[in-house]
Amino acid sequence: MTSMQLGLIGLGKMGGNMAARLREKGHEVVGYDRSPDQRDVASLAELVDRLAAPRTVWLMVPAGGPTTNTIAELSELLAPGDLIIEGGNSHYVDDRRHADELSAKGIRYVDAGVSGGVWGRQNGYGIMVGGAAEDVAHAKPIFDALTPDSGGGYVHAGGVGAGHFVKMVHNGIEYGMMQAFAEGYELMAASDVVDDVVGTFDSWREGTVVRSWLLDLLVRALEEDPELKGIRGYAQDSGEGRWTVQAAVDHAVPAPVITAALFARFASRQDDSPAMKVVAALRNQFGGHAVTKSAGDPA
Amino acid sequence: MTSMQLGLIGLGKMGGNMAARLREKGHEVVGYDRSPDQRDVASLAELVDRLAAPRTVWLMVPAGGPTTNTIAELSELLAPGDLIIEGGNSHYVDDRRHADELSAKGIRYVDAGVSGGVWGRQNGYGIMVGGAAEDVAHAKPIFDALTPDSGGGYVHAGGVGAGHFVKMVHNGIEYGMMQAFAEGYELMAASDVVDDVVGTFDSWREGTVVRSWLLDLLVRALEEDPELKGIRGYAQDSGEGRWTVQAAVDHAVPAPVITAALFARFASRQDDSPAMKVVAALRNQFGGHAVTKSAGDPA
Amino acid sequence: MTSMQLGLIGLGKMGGNMAARLREKGHEVVGYDRSPDQRDVASLAELVDRLAAPRTVWLMVPAGGPTTNTIAELSELLAPGDLIIEGGNSHYVDDRRHADELSAKGIRYVDAGVSGGVWGRQNGYGIMVGGAAEDVAHAKPIFDALTPDSGGGYVHAGGVGAGHFVKMVHNGIEYGMMQAFAEGYELMAASDVVDDVVGTFDSWREGTVVRSWLLDLLVRALEEDPELKGIRGYAQDSGEGRWTVQAAVDHAVPAPVITAALFARFASRQDDSPAMKVVAALRNQFGGHAVTKSAGDPA
Amino acid sequence: MTSMQLGLIGLGKMGGNMAARLREKGHEVVGYDRSPDQRDVASLAELVDRLAAPRTVWLMVPAGGPTTNTIAELSELLAPGDLIIEGGNSHYVDDRRHADELSAKGIRYVDAGVSGGVWGRQNGYGIMVGGAAEDVAHAKPIFDALTPDSGGGYVHAGGVGAGHFVKMVHNGIEYGMMQAFAEGYELMAASDVVDDVVGTFDSWREGTVVRSWLLDLLVRALEEDPELKGIRGYAQDSGEGRWTVQAAVDHAVPAPVITAALFARFASRQDDSPAMKVVAALRNQFGGHAVTKSAGDPA
Repeated sequence: MTSMQLGLIGLGKMGGNMAARLREKGHEVVGYDRSPDQRDVASLAELVDRLAAPRTVWLMVPAGGPTTNTIAELSELLAPGDLIIEGGNSHYVDDRRHADELSAKGIRYVDAGVSGGVWGRQNGYGIMVGGAAEDVAHAKPIFDALTPDSGGGYVHAGGVGAGHFVKMVHNGIEYGMMQAFAEGYELMAASDVVDDVVGTFDSWREGTVVRSWLLDLLVRALEEDPELKGIRGYAQDSGEGRWTVQAAVDHAVPAPVITAALFARFASRQDDSPAMKVVAALRNQFGGHAVTKSAGDPA
Repeated sequence: MTSMQLGLIGLGKMGGNMAARLREKGHEVVGYDRSPDQRDVASLAELVDRLAAPRTVWLMVPAGGPTTNTIAELSELLAPGDLIIEGGNSHYVDDRRHADELSAKGIRYVDAGVSGGVWGRQNGYGIMVGGAAEDVAHAKPIFDALTPDSGGGYVHAGGVGAGHFVKMVHNGIEYGMMQAFAEGYELMAASDVVDDVVGTFDSWREGTVVRSWLLDLLVRALEEDPELKGIRGYAQDSGEGRWTVQAAVDHAVPAPVITAALFARFASRQDDSPAMKVVAALRNQFGGHAVTKSAGDPA
Repeated sequence: MTSMQLGLIGLGKMGGNMAARLREKGHEVVGYDRSPDQRDVASLAELVDRLAAPRTVWLMVPAGGPTTNTIAELSELLAPGDLIIEGGNSHYVDDRRHADELSAKGIRYVDAGVSGGVWGRQNGYGIMVGGAAEDVAHAKPIFDALTPDSGGGYVHAGGVGAGHFVKMVHNGIEYGMMQAFAEGYELMAASDVVDDVVGTFDSWREGTVVRSWLLDLLVRALEEDPELKGIRGYAQDSGEGRWTVQAAVDHAVPAPVITAALFARFASRQDDSPAMKVVAALRNQFGGHAVTKSAGDPA
Repeated sequence: MTSMQLGLIGLGKMGGNMAARLREKGHEVVGYDRSPDQRDVASLAELVDRLAAPRTVWLMVPAGGPTTNTIAELSELLAPGDLIIEGGNSHYVDDRRHADELSAKGIRYVDAGVSGGVWGRQNGYGIMVGGAAEDVAHAKPIFDALTPDSGGGYVHAGGVGAGHFVKMVHNGIEYGMMQAFAEGYELMAASDVVDDVVGTFDSWREGTVVRSWLLDLLVRALEEDPELKGIRGYAQDSGEGRWTVQAAVDHAVPAPVITAALFARFASRQDDSPAMKVVAALRNQFGGHAVTKSAGDPA
């Protein structure tokens, strides 16, 4: 295995674990973070100074402004031939723009979608890469260290942007799978038929069609809190789910399941739904001026 | 016009208005209700006594148990040749069972779906009828009095059950249309683009593709309460919406819009969604044991 | 009524009818089209020459490139104080860009969403306008002539872009309503319960909750072709439906009905669905290597 | 391990494999099938004769009529204390009826949902059981032999019907998961971004959130036929998916993902969609009598 030197920007939950895994595998990591706690260098300039050319710098900062700003700052510090790997959750369209801008300065760009969460340090991460073949090849030892020891969990999916595109689709699929389990849970809990909901999910972990890592995690969550009393039915969404739906619409691809999963998250965050106010108002109009609370449709 | 004598059971908001319209049109209505306030007779037996054979009795009581029980009691009181018109919101499958049971005693049965809400007394009701041709013909003067003066608003849709079947489908369509307006409202309200949401809906009442009675009602509701502050986003559903979805599933008919409208109502009534607890729990599992409230997807 | 002079670019089905209605109402219309058949002038330059300053020019050309290119060309020909009304189906985001670019040259910009199709010449159009108050006021006589004689069908919805935004939402709602009727039709046709599907829809035109212009059109279509044998189940979509879904996603607004209606159109245009190939392939995998055609789930 | 004697009715793909696995584990299986090829006995009467009381008989025949008829026939042949295990895909409501009817004759009834398809013989099956504790305990050695050697894959979910109820929910979840992968596939295939779709799915098998048995099967299918050219986008559905949606509707549980997956299968089997004929007809009505094929919305 080739040992490499890597600058890593962003030492949060994901970046910090990745740095640890890379070091365990024998790579040299120079880490920078806005927060002084864990960082090896105090500035991007110092980070660039510490790396031998041609440099490889991995970004692991929030998508959007922070990533764009960091790339802009790096583009002033790095030299032709250096390589930026954007490992955060950028939109694939932004990757292409970043790559074009950096290309004008001779700086190379690879995007890498990373999956695996807090489990990745131990199990390895799923890594999906987009970029030119020679740039991807250059960083391959890094990818090898991050992915599972089995040799799986890695794909060079296409040109710049392809890594984040397939990570986006991965997350869209993930939304749909999570919602499928969620609906099944609610139905079992709502019925008076099933005495052992947790045991049912647990039994599905072997021999069935739905066995999966998400099912393993669900059983883990239910064993901690069998009726999920400590958790609100409130789910955030991130860019990937939205981008998946928008890409589906752009490509005229029907994506009812992924979209339904996204909308369920939107609805979960509403205290009162403006749309359902309209439905209630219309029902009231049918039934006369009084705001009815009747159980039946008045019309 | 032939003047008829009609027994009417159930003098609530719908039945009471229908009785008034029928009387205005010259029919004799003998009304019964559990509540003594408005009724002409104090029991079903007295109602049957007051009607000349062959009798026509219109039921306007809640679907399910109350309707089934009333029909059972009437079947003991009525004579061969008498006609029951079930004008409530029965499931079409129940109509067939009722008709079969009554047929054994020589009692005739017609089902009538009624639309129009509190506006029907003035505008006339939409009436959708199922039953044998001769039974439907017998009651035609009643249907003529209830439907709009224009002569429209009436269909003999098929055999027993067909009236309630098409009324069920009507309500399913209604769910979809209401939800479409509701989503449009929410999107306009959520954006910072539209300064005059109420005026926009009002403008659509003429010249546009979406002009409709529901739009008229929506504008009426918004003029009373432009931001619908006095109304909770909480919408009941009645049997018809559920039955429409179940009939669609039975017939392998994709009905995504009607179903989405129904599910939106279900969700509107949940304080906390068990399904979304699962989604939140799974997101927590990706991100480690801590219950995160982070804005981004941890994986 | 103030008579105005208007340049109108695009004399297709919509533009041609609008020109006719405007002339009937006493306005002077100078029309231009790429096609020489109906046009009054042979070029944009000639059109601008024929109009007295300050000029008002209405665009009625396809959205996207044609509109952008026409605006670019006009920006070279028009003078400060002149007004462009973009009446096509532009995305509201493009309106803002156009307005900004023209503003630098002192040219004013108003966007106008137009609804009503081929029926608008006779009934009047629904017109939804976005722009500065003084610019909208300047063109008010034109809007008055296009909208129904009743005085309805008009809204100044907000700043630049608001007209096309609410027209976009209007079309999204329209998608949902159409799909609701479509699902109801399919369910009635698939069942063996309803003997008179066309009569049922016709009866709904009065007294019911679903009465609407779309229902009128549906009855008209069914009276021409009761089983729609001459029409393929193949539906195009235009930008507005897609943009509505994308705007909903951007604003975290659940829009399941509008989205389902859009996806149904996407699916209607696929000869073979790649997604359903995957579902079929997975079912085959459960059941072994053979491509099964069995009626039951193998697992 | 206790060796048991079992009557097994239905020796098709599932039943035949189960018989083989049971025999390998040391149980005595007396098999009956309508087809003479593999059976040990030529009639149900002979099967009952061959078993020592109290008998245990496992049914593995198609749900609905065949299962009901077999149970009716067995109820005449079996003796009080005998046990029927219904291992097919019965609706849980039917289980309760069967159990009630058999109970009157002293015959015991357990329902068992079985998952695992053709892979079950080798890997073991997932088995979900409903019934009285003592009846389930009696058959436990059979369940132990059928489930994976690890000891997992088994749950006693509740009273009679609970086994098939949770199997039904399992299949509903399965529909949602399959559709999620299917939509992701179609989006990647439709874009011009991803060069290696098969490699992407393969990479997801490790380290990612979506890793699952279904993903393994999908990669297997794609490795055999990378563009799925040999497979039509046509997917059957079985009772479980429909029953899941109907149970969700009955319990007012929003199940948009499972329902969307079911509707996608319905739509995949339509050559021409009646609903989309309506949408196309309405679009034509906006745009005038001519059947337009235009790319834009006429209104």
